[in-house]
Amino acid sequence: MKRAIPTTMRSVVGYANRVVVEERPVPEPGQGQVLIRSRACGVCGSDLHFVRHFDEIYGGPDGVHLGHEFVGEVAAHGPGAERIATGTRVASVPFVTESGTRLGVGTSRRVPGAFSEYFLLDAADLILVPDDLPDEIVTLAEPLAVGIHAVARGEVSPADAVLVIGCGPVGLATVAALRMRGVTTVIASDPKASRRDMALDLGASRVVDPTIDDDVALLAQLGAEGRHVVIECAGVTPLVPTVIKRAPTKTRVVLAGVHLAEVTISPMIAMTKELDLRFSFYYTADEFAAALDALATGRVDLAPIITATVGLDDLPDTFELLFAPNDHIKVVVKTKGTP
Amino acid sequence: MKRAIPTTMRSVVGYANRVVVEERPVPEPGQGQVLIRSRACGVCGSDLHFVRHFDEIYGGPDGVHLGHEFVGEVAAHGPGAERIATGTRVASVPFVTESGTRLGVGTSRRVPGAFSEYFLLDAADLILVPDDLPDEIVTLAEPLAVGIHAVARGEVSPADAVLVIGCGPVGLATVAALRMRGVTTVIASDPKASRRDMALDLGASRVVDPTIDDDVALLAQLGAEGRHVVIECAGVTPLVPTVIKRAPTKTRVVLAGVHLAEVTISPMIAMTKELDLRFSFYYTADEFAAALDALATGRVDLAPIITATVGLDDLPDTFELLFAPNDHIKVVVKTKGTP
Repeated sequence: MKRAIPTTMRSVVGYANRVVVEERPVPEPGQGQVLIRSRACGVCGSDLHFVRHFDEIYGGPDGVHLGHEFVGEVAAHGPGAERIATGTRVASVPFVTESGTRLGVGTSRRVPGAFSEYFLLDAADLILVPDDLPDEIVTLAEPLAVGIHAVARGEVSPADAVLVIGCGPVGLATVAALRMRGVTTVIASDPKASRRDMALDLGASRVVDPTIDDDVALLAQLGAEGRHVVIECAGVTPLVPTVIKRAPTKTRVVLAGVHLAEVTISPMIAMTKELDLRFSFYYTADEFAAALDALATGRVDLAPIITATVGLDDLPDTFELLFAPNDHIKVVVKTKGTP
Repeated sequence: MKRAIPTTMRSVVGYANRVVVEERPVPEPGQGQVLIRSRACGVCGSDLHFVRHFDEIYGGPDGVHLGHEFVGEVAAHGPGAERIATGTRVASVPFVTESGTRLGVGTSRRVPGAFSEYFLLDAADLILVPDDLPDEIVTLAEPLAVGIHAVARGEVSPADAVLVIGCGPVGLATVAALRMRGVTTVIASDPKASRRDMALDLGASRVVDPTIDDDVALLAQLGAEGRHVVIECAGVTPLVPTVIKRAPTKTRVVLAGVHLAEVTISPMIAMTKELDLRFSFYYTADEFAAALDALATGRVDLAPIITATVGLDDLPDTFELLFAPNDHIKVVVKTKGTP
């Protein structure tokens, strides 16, 4: 027996420094679109960024629909989108096409994000999820894809020595992605011991507390010229010029952290060392599928990064909690079946 | 009949905002070194930089020995360096090994540069020069190698659309290097009409006056995503952030110009477009040899960039001239046989 789809739903909307659970209309799937019942969705560092820096990034009175690390189930089909049966559990890259424009699910004002009970996706993007893979693990495909992409942007090969700066979700996913690629010299740097321990579990060969030891100097010791890679995952803007100053000759520096502030660098230093600064953003559909596959087959076990599971109505309090200093790494929202 | 080597020589030494022709001892070639009689040497933009910014780069009372775009002839051999006969005309990458350290010829305080009558090189680095290749053409191998290296740093392939910003010696050499690589979509940008004409002669498919038209916007029109390359050869630091702002998604930005000032960029803009900033410095020995070969075989004709030929004693006046606005591109010093 199919449950009828309601006309309104709960939807978490972000504004400057706060998120609000609002009653919103359930959207109608258009041509090629499917309506998805959200099942679970992770809170990402960029969700926090969007809310904390709402005025700079979005501005105006209208809120942004959050939630882009999701798993859901097909609830209804638009015309020409009947590929996957109602009730099937699916994942997808977080985009939907509206009038020919690709909009970000969970980053846009125009379409609901996955911190809504229902949202829209393109049928063509849907990936089936193995039955025995828990919802919260599926939500980790998104951050793992970010790590896989950062590693690809660095064109990292197994013989390279790599320093991962910051062991939040992106840093830990990057450590896991390096292990997937067969890289054996992986230094992970984070001031928190619990995060360093997790990096070791995920395949880092060395960990460093950067408040005590110089992580970049250690990297320089371990690799050969042209074989050093730094992947900055902390989003701490003042680190960027110090990485440039300390990096050994011919280091590829991948910037995977989000930096809203401007950064001042010395081109002369970067030039005489022939550095690369490579900016990394999102991932390809293939990288997303590879991430999901790595989680499904157990090649990567990111489950330990989940430090809390909450309900949709808990999100305003959860954002408050995450804005203050805390020990969480990844909080997952059970969007279905929780109050 | 061999001419005896004198004990002293004229040597051009750079200090803050001036160069001086000094009487200096002719150096003794050590193990593996050869003494070279300088024949000709080009004035490089970095020579001007070193003198203009002497206090920042070198400081202290001791001057820097200038001249690194040279051709010379073997004058004497150190122990174990008899590979090439006295009198033979040679080129080389501008380095010499002293006590195990590689020093820059023409950028160091410790060893003479090629704006000296004599200087030292490593015998192992010497490359023979075809008899019919004029001295001043050989001196162009160095800037051409800089262009070849910048193109290599951009991993430019023939189907890419490339914008070269600045048509001084490095920019023009880069245009020539792009043509060597088979790149057909090459936009060259310079405010001076004479330099734009030269870029067309060297193989640019389009030229732009950036004071009138937007060179980066033109690049965006001509290439496809992931196939855009900008090679910055102007050394104009305020251009860097505007290139980042204007560049299309996934552009590789190669910085081949010399920037002594710091630069402030927006990582967020570079991130959402996934730009690469790749710094380029010098070249490999193979690239230098390839440059000399391209000049020797006539595949590249850089001769038109030479706008004046002067003597060693003219250099103080020449530097004065080049510090002021002028229409020179490359000035070559005939270090042998001129007063």
